[in-house]
Amino acid sequence: MALLVIAPDLEMTPFVEQLHTLDPELEIRIWPEFGNADDIEFALTWYHPPGELKKFINLKCIASFGAGVDHILRDPNLPPGVLLTRVVESSMPQFMSEYVILAVLNYCRQFDIYKEDKINKQWQPRIPLLARDIRIGIMGLGQLGADAATKLIQLGFEVIGWSRTPKTISGVLSFAGDDALANFLSQANILICLLPLTSATKGILNRNTFEKLPAGAYLINVARGEHLIEKDLLDALKSGYLSGACLDVFNVEPLPEDHPFWNHPNIMITPHISSLTDPKAVMPQILENYHRMKSGKPLLHVVDVERGY
Amino acid sequence: MALLVIAPDLEMTPFVEQLHTLDPELEIRIWPEFGNADDIEFALTWYHPPGELKKFINLKCIASFGAGVDHILRDPNLPPGVLLTRVVESSMPQFMSEYVILAVLNYCRQFDIYKEDKINKQWQPRIPLLARDIRIGIMGLGQLGADAATKLIQLGFEVIGWSRTPKTISGVLSFAGDDALANFLSQANILICLLPLTSATKGILNRNTFEKLPAGAYLINVARGEHLIEKDLLDALKSGYLSGACLDVFNVEPLPEDHPFWNHPNIMITPHISSLTDPKAVMPQILENYHRMKSGKPLLHVVDVERGY
Repeated sequence: MALLVIAPDLEMTPFVEQLHTLDPELEIRIWPEFGNADDIEFALTWYHPPGELKKFINLKCIASFGAGVDHILRDPNLPPGVLLTRVVESSMPQFMSEYVILAVLNYCRQFDIYKEDKINKQWQPRIPLLARDIRIGIMGLGQLGADAATKLIQLGFEVIGWSRTPKTISGVLSFAGDDALANFLSQANILICLLPLTSATKGILNRNTFEKLPAGAYLINVARGEHLIEKDLLDALKSGYLSGACLDVFNVEPLPEDHPFWNHPNIMITPHISSLTDPKAVMPQILENYHRMKSGKPLLHVVDVERGY
Repeated sequence: MALLVIAPDLEMTPFVEQLHTLDPELEIRIWPEFGNADDIEFALTWYHPPGELKKFINLKCIASFGAGVDHILRDPNLPPGVLLTRVVESSMPQFMSEYVILAVLNYCRQFDIYKEDKINKQWQPRIPLLARDIRIGIMGLGQLGADAATKLIQLGFEVIGWSRTPKTISGVLSFAGDDALANFLSQANILICLLPLTSATKGILNRNTFEKLPAGAYLINVARGEHLIEKDLLDALKSGYLSGACLDVFNVEPLPEDHPFWNHPNIMITPHISSLTDPKAVMPQILENYHRMKSGKPLLHVVDVERGY
């Protein structure tokens, strides 16, 4: 049996080297050179070509290379009955929370404006947004959302959260389910999306959502581009429902050169770098699951396919 | 008796209104309209004109409007035997730590570079600086330095500190005194200056200091402009001892239009906004000391003039 790595858009060499170092006996196949398809019982994937995994009739586990599995579930021709796993590791929330805090403080303390002032050699102190006057709303209170919430509270911000089911995080007022969404949104001066991408959350950042926020709210999307209806964001910025946005993910990546976001003065753009997969932390987890599968033990971080995470 | 407000460069109206609201009986004089100089027993000051305070022969207390008293002590003609006080309040460290964290994350997560990429419509993920690979050195472990250190540790950074006398802050390796400075500097990838300005710390951010840092270190100065020898910073950036700097304070403020910092690509400039004096929090403290003085009680936050803070 063998482990297949199928991640066409990623430079996988450091990750494959890490697997080799951890287990020199492991037989690794790198797509598209997979040899005899019947050998493959475990696939490590990131945006595999849809339909491709059906070739492997002995496949028992599809392991996502990241925290999300939407890139696996978008394939309508997944082999049936195969377990899906995802990565859960501590450097991921650390890294994501850094980005979220940077985006929040960059907005409140107006570093973008001071950078423009610098270009104009202008010395102009401005009234900042005070943490005590701001409520941050986090959509999605999983491992990433909970870590960001806790750290923002430590910095003096008030944080509320919204998720599918009620969550208990110290200091966070938690809203759950569709019925509570409007109430949650009406109180969030900064809205942060950290939701998993599922059929229920796709397009959730839309006109309807933006209109429920306090006037002039700020949006931070670090989840998936498909959470956002991009045209609705442009309209909300134009009409003043939103004052600005910091976006790390987009419907199409890389963001096309002719996309209107590039020129918008109130949109900060980063190229999908908010979170980071750290091979030192991820590969031991992948390997652990591979050996658990071989010896028939229960796998770690198995995804509920109905829920989508 | 009366309280004199002497702060020529500040818009004091909101602060005076706050004092009036808190104590409608209080007699407030606003320099230069101070009436009979003999009435003045208490002066609330921010960069008063040197020599001016000698006019008030009944003066008992000079209260700084902020955390520092260097702007008082620079006057060689202070009336002798008058107590100096400073402001100590919780919103100040909160606000300062926000700035420090923003400056640190802005550097590590390369938002300046991504902003340039945005102008060029360039999608280019870059390798960030990881918190685990960075050691932050804080000079000055008073109320502000201790708060910043604690919050940076919560975000996953390693923090070391340097101060005149040894300090105990959970998680912070503390260095104290001149003999320990070189050892401290040799370990700090990001150097943050939060020292009080005294004769011992003036010009402490100089060539000698920069050369002891690890190559390519980053400087954040949020204390006083006079801590920094500005020419030495430009030389250190040129030679690579430093990779960049975020500066909120300068030798001359506002920073003159022809100053070379404005055009330097690796210097971030903000107009002395890192900390904030919040009238809601400060004025009750000033008033408390005024009434303590009137009734002969010991004052709060009295400065040791020899030490300078």
